[in-house]
Formats: sequence, C-alpha cells, structure tokens
Amino acid sequence: MDIRQYVVDKAKKAKTAGRQMAGISTAVKNSALYAMADALEANADKILFANEKDIEIGKKAGLSKALLDRLLLNEGRIKDMAEGLRQVASLADPVGEIVRMWTRPNGLQIGQIRVPLGVVGIIYEARPNVTVDAAGLCLKAGNTVLLRGGSEAIHSNIEIVNIITEAAIGKGLPDGCIQLIEITDREAANIMMRLNGYLDVLIPRGGAGLIRSVVENATVPVIETGVGNCHVYVDSDADLTMAENIVINAKTQRPAVCNAMEKLLVHEDIADKFLPTIGEKLTALGVELRGCPRTCEILPGIKPALEEDWEREYLDLVLAIKVVKTLDEALEHIYIYGTKHSEAIITNSYVNSRRFLKEVDAAAVYVNASTRFTDGFEFGFGAEIGISTQKLHARGPMGLKELTTTKYIIYGEGQIRG
Amino acid sequence: MDIRQYVVDKAKKAKTAGRQMAGISTAVKNSALYAMADALEANADKILFANEKDIEIGKKAGLSKALLDRLLLNEGRIKDMAEGLRQVASLADPVGEIVRMWTRPNGLQIGQIRVPLGVVGIIYEARPNVTVDAAGLCLKAGNTVLLRGGSEAIHSNIEIVNIITEAAIGKGLPDGCIQLIEITDREAANIMMRLNGYLDVLIPRGGAGLIRSVVENATVPVIETGVGNCHVYVDSDADLTMAENIVINAKTQRPAVCNAMEKLLVHEDIADKFLPTIGEKLTALGVELRGCPRTCEILPGIKPALEEDWEREYLDLVLAIKVVKTLDEALEHIYIYGTKHSEAIITNSYVNSRRFLKEVDAAAVYVNASTRFTDGFEFGFGAEIGISTQKLHARGPMGLKELTTTKYIIYGEGQIRG
Repeated sequence: MDIRQYVVDKAKKAKTAGRQMAGISTAVKNSALYAMADALEANADKILFANEKDIEIGKKAGLSKALLDRLLLNEGRIKDMAEGLRQVASLADPVGEIVRMWTRPNGLQIGQIRVPLGVVGIIYEARPNVTVDAAGLCLKAGNTVLLRGGSEAIHSNIEIVNIITEAAIGKGLPDGCIQLIEITDREAANIMMRLNGYLDVLIPRGGAGLIRSVVENATVPVIETGVGNCHVYVDSDADLTMAENIVINAKTQRPAVCNAMEKLLVHEDIADKFLPTIGEKLTALGVELRGCPRTCEILPGIKPALEEDWEREYLDLVLAIKVVKTLDEALEHIYIYGTKHSEAIITNSYVNSRRFLKEVDAAAVYVNASTRFTDGFEFGFGAEIGISTQKLHARGPMGLKELTTTKYIIYGEGQIRG
Repeated sequence: MDIRQYVVDKAKKAKTAGRQMAGISTAVKNSALYAMADALEANADKILFANEKDIEIGKKAGLSKALLDRLLLNEGRIKDMAEGLRQVASLADPVGEIVRMWTRPNGLQIGQIRVPLGVVGIIYEARPNVTVDAAGLCLKAGNTVLLRGGSEAIHSNIEIVNIITEAAIGKGLPDGCIQLIEITDREAANIMMRLNGYLDVLIPRGGAGLIRSVVENATVPVIETGVGNCHVYVDSDADLTMAENIVINAKTQRPAVCNAMEKLLVHEDIADKFLPTIGEKLTALGVELRGCPRTCEILPGIKPALEEDWEREYLDLVLAIKVVKTLDEALEHIYIYGTKHSEAIITNSYVNSRRFLKEVDAAAVYVNASTRFTDGFEFGFGAEIGISTQKLHARGPMGLKELTTTKYIIYGEGQIRG
C-alpha cells in the first residue's frame, strides 16, 4: 500500500468537503452536532466493543496503568463525549462575524469577516475522547478535520469516527468532513506534517515528544501547544494563607496537566515562615519536594534540586522550590526556565503586581490566583482545542474563534488605483 | 568561522534586546524612529558610497537591469526611506491595547493585552530599503529584528544598519535591537530558519523561490507572503466601461507586484463585445495576451494559453484570458488555480456579488474594484510589512498590529480551581 497516496487521498477528501463546509449554516452544523452526540450514546455498545480490543492489545503490549486508563472508555465517558458535543452546539458560531468594517477616502468599503480555516489537522495520542472533541470543535467552526490518533486507540477511533461521520452526513454535512488516518505508522504522521496545500493548520495534542517532533518536521503551519513549566512566586508581603491555598491548588489539584505549578519561588524575607508550613502540607499530600540550597536548609531532609529540575515539566506530584532575594531574581528565573505558559505572583504589593504582569512574557500571567485557571472552560470560552504556547495566531487557551481565520471583503463602485 | 555560532550570537543579542524593548515607551520608540530618519539623511553620502560598491559588483556579476534598479539607491530613495520611518513614528502604537477584558463568575478579571512578538526575523532580497522599512516597523511594534538581506545589497545593508542602529541606541533603544546577518551564505539563512527559542516569527520577503525555500526549511513559525495569481472575473451584466478601467488598472498599473491581475475570466454572454475592445487596449499598452480556445476565436492571432499559464504568476505584462459559461465555472477556476491572494468580480448582479464574496477563499475579495488595492497603505493601515497569503495569525496586508501578539493577564483575590 502506498502510504503517501493514502494520506493525500484522505486530505483531498477533507479539502473538498472543507469547501462545502464553509457554506453550511449554523443551524445545520448544530443539528449535526446533536445527531453526533445522540449517535455516540445509541452506539455505546459498539464503541465499548472496539475499545475492549484496544485495551486487550494494550495490556499485552505492556502499556502502563496510566496509559490504559487514558485509553479506557465506559458508559460514563461516552456520555461525557456526547455532552461535550451538545455543549459545542450551544456555543455561538464564530463564522461570519464582521470583525471590523470601514470606508476609505476613495469610497471603498473594506470589511474583515471571520471565516473557517479550511482543513485542520490534529495529531494526538492515546485518549479516544480527543477524536470527538476535536471533530466537534472543528466542524462547529466550519472546518473539516484530518485526524491522526495514537495506534493504541485505533479500534476505538475507527468506530467513533464511523458513528459520528454517519450522523453528521445524515444532517447535511459534506461527505469527507471527518477524515481519520487509520494507518498508525509514524510515516503516515510524517506525511501529514508536510501536506502544504491541503492542511491549513496542524495542532499536535500530546506530550512534549510529540509536540517537538511536529515542530521539527512540519512544513504546514503548526500551533504549538502544551508544555508548561509553570511558576508561582510568593512575594515578601504576600498573604501567606492565600499563598498556601494557591500553591496547594496549583500543585496538587491535577498535577498531570500543563497548567499545574511545577516550581515554587519564595522571597527570602518570608521563606523561614512560609516554607515549613507549606512543606509539611505538600508532603502530607504526597508531593515530593526538591530545593535550592537555602530551601534545603529550611526544610532539611528534602532532595537538592539539580539544574535539570528547574527546566523540567514533572507533570507529577513533584515540586522544586527556590528562595529568591528579590522580585528581579524571580523574574530572571522565570525568564530563563519558563515555557511561557502560565506564571503567577502572590503579593499584596501594587508595584510588584504591575511589574510581574508587565514583565513576564507568558500566555497567562496571574496575580493572586492559581495557574490552574489557564483553560478554555475556566476562561469562559465554553470549549478548548488546546493551549497555545506560541505567539502566532493564538496564545493561551484556544476556543472556536482560534479555529477560524478572516478574509477582507471589499465593496467598490469601479475604484482603480492611481 | 563558525557560521552557526555567528548566527546564534546575533539572535541571542536580538533576544536579550527584545526583553528590554517590550518595556520601552511609545515616546522613546518614536524619538528613536525620528533620529533614525535624520541619521539616514545626514549620512546619505556614506550610504551612497556603500551602494556604489554593490552596484559595481552587481554589474560585474551580470545582474539584470531590473535587479540593478532595485538595488540602486540615490538621494531621493534615501529620503523616501527616512520619510517612511517618520510615517511609522506617527502611527498609533499597538502595544498595550487591551483587546478585551471580562470578569468571570468567580470574580477573576481576565484581560487580553497586546504585546510585542519578541524577535522578528526577515529574510529578503536585493532591495536595501526593506532593511529600513522592516527595522522601523518591528521596532515600533516593540520587537527587535534579525535581518538577512541579499548578498547583492550587503554593503548598503551594513552601512544602513550601522547608521540607524547608532541613532536608535542614542535615543534609548537597547543595544542589539537591530541585528544584521552579514554572512550572505545560504547556510546562514538556513540556520536562521531553525532558530526555535530565539526567533518568534520569520517573514520572507521576496520572490516565489525564496518563500518556498523558507516554508520548506523553517522550523520557526513563518508568515508566508506574496505569491498572487490574481483573477478578475467580468460577469455577464458588468458595466463594461468599469470592467475595462479595472482590468487595465489591475494589469498594467504595476505589473510586477503580487496584487496585479494575472488572469482575466469573462462571461461568454459578453465575451464577443468585451474582448475585442479590451484586447486592443491591453495590446496597445504592451500586454501580451494568451487565451483559451474561445478567446483565441474572438481575438485571432493571440497565443493559446497552456495549462501552465493558468497556474503562473507572470509579474509581467502578460495576461491569460478565459471565457467561462457561468459564475460557477469562474469560481471553480479560481478555486483550482488561485493562490488565495486577491480576487475580483465586476458585476451588477447583487446575487452574484454576494456569492463571489462568500465563496471565494482569498485574503481579499473584491466587487467592482481593482485588485491593486490589497496593500497596507491603501487599506489605511499606514504601513505594511508584507501581504500574508496564509491563514494563521495574519491574512492580507500586515501592519503594525500583525507584528504583535497578546497575552492574558488575570487579576485574582486568591481564587483556586475547584
């Protein structure tokens, strides 16, 4: 089998369907999303049957418990996927928005109107719910989607795509609107990354390795998502109870996600007072602490932090702590080691809060709140396709609007350029 | 000499300076731009001396007349560059704009604020004025810039960069704010294309070959600019005098630029009437015509258009003409051969104008106006760094705003995620 031809054929179908999608009304898109949701629930048994195959193969292949859990579907998770689609249906359609419109001295009326991107490519890993989420968001924004999920979830993904595609087409979406690459070879993904002329954007969703591979190899435009080496800096005049609550929340509420705190910076004036209590509480919650030399003096018995600790995204119940002499030292540390995702200061100083907001270069910069809020739902976007850590096109949580582009429309009466 | 190290050092300087640039006030940036303009005029003799070297070498190397003209500087062109900088100084600063701000039910106040991109890379060809234009626009938007011009203009570029950098630093911009890669090896450009972590965006400005090479090789985010295979479609009930004026303007006013018309589509109902007159006028203006079979019947003696004619961007006084049976055929032709740059319909039909605006997927879609208006100045942006033909981040003419990104700032009172 010619893998390249196979991938290009899928992309061609998505592109042809994309041209039709752009003209589909909001009402039709919404009825398709509701039908997709209903079809998922009605065919739960088929999905679970396919998922069992994936789980079985995964167990034989020795997948970790965590990975198997991500892979696993059950009635509840299928219901959640369906509810997700219904929620997307209830969101406002970004397509057609007139972003701005103005008249030039020569009488030309120029408008910027929001339109779909075209074909969105998603490369993702084990979780089959991404298949449904991504398809729903892309379709609502008027795009078609080319999906490439992980090999571990292939049986689940094929079944899910069959079910939702049939439902979508039944309500009037174009054949080809959801394309799944069923070949799970690395080669198929590599071909997909270079589909200029077919793919308008490629969004990798997964671990740091996947994202790096896509950024390295893709020639189509990419939106980089995910990696978050997030810091919380507790300033000298912070409210220490507030600081404690935020640190515990940012570290432990869901440690495996990109907006969880990975590093704690503490001003030296309060380190003696703050670190023993927070250290004890974090340890009690199962967090492994690693510290700079000063931290290790205050919290004897914890591991010393190595250079690589300051760079790493643990995605786990591990926290490295550094005592800093000044706000400047904290800013410098974040500049050097941060991944421009989410950074927070806990302070009661007006001046320091302003400086932190201004000087930290990240997708989301917080004063007195947990980094865990960097999320499309928490921001009020109603949905999220990922969190962009790059600066082009979209930065931070991406909702439906970030899955669109604009074009200029110009109304003239015969104007020519002088 | 280690080319890689050389390029990385330049990029490092630009990055370090970029961090300082973000905090520089509009007033300081503007005074730097005015000082740069004054310095160009005051040192015109030095620039002309360096430019003479480039011209001399270029002549020996057998550069074409057109290329030598693009390379050539004179008092007038230096004055134009200086005026360009003064104009950029007079534009509103996009940095600091609060794009939107809202309060969540939990009391979090979330704002999206416009900030500089950081370091902008520009790879360009022979024209030394791009050095000044690009530096001015990048600095005004709070960025630093890493420039890589063509080897033909290297002496001019070095002199220009020395002069404007000294002026900029004299007014308080950070050392390193304008970095020129003086090694004109292809290798230096290739290294620049993969400077992830240093370059926030790379904008190629030049011919199709340069742009293709950047898109193919870059791992940093790229904004693709330029290629325009632009169509004008004259509908069955167009005002033929208006159509004539627009066609002549779009083809002949400046044929070597990307928003010039390259293809003319004519509805069959008016082809017999329209083509003889427009054919005669275009021929008189020196335009070489190539036609589909029906066009060749109406305009005997012109060359037949080959398949490759429909695909090509001539950038010259050449025009291919096709007679179409319907609006649908015109839309299909544009879909297949267009480069999503600028497309126009000349019509008096309300329905057809609406369909054209809706169904054509391009950066700029016109009704009854010349495609030549796709331009930052003509759109009223006051400046232009290029015309994006991709869909991510920016589409169409890019002004200062397109040289920025945003970040989210969040004001809390101790909120944690539940």
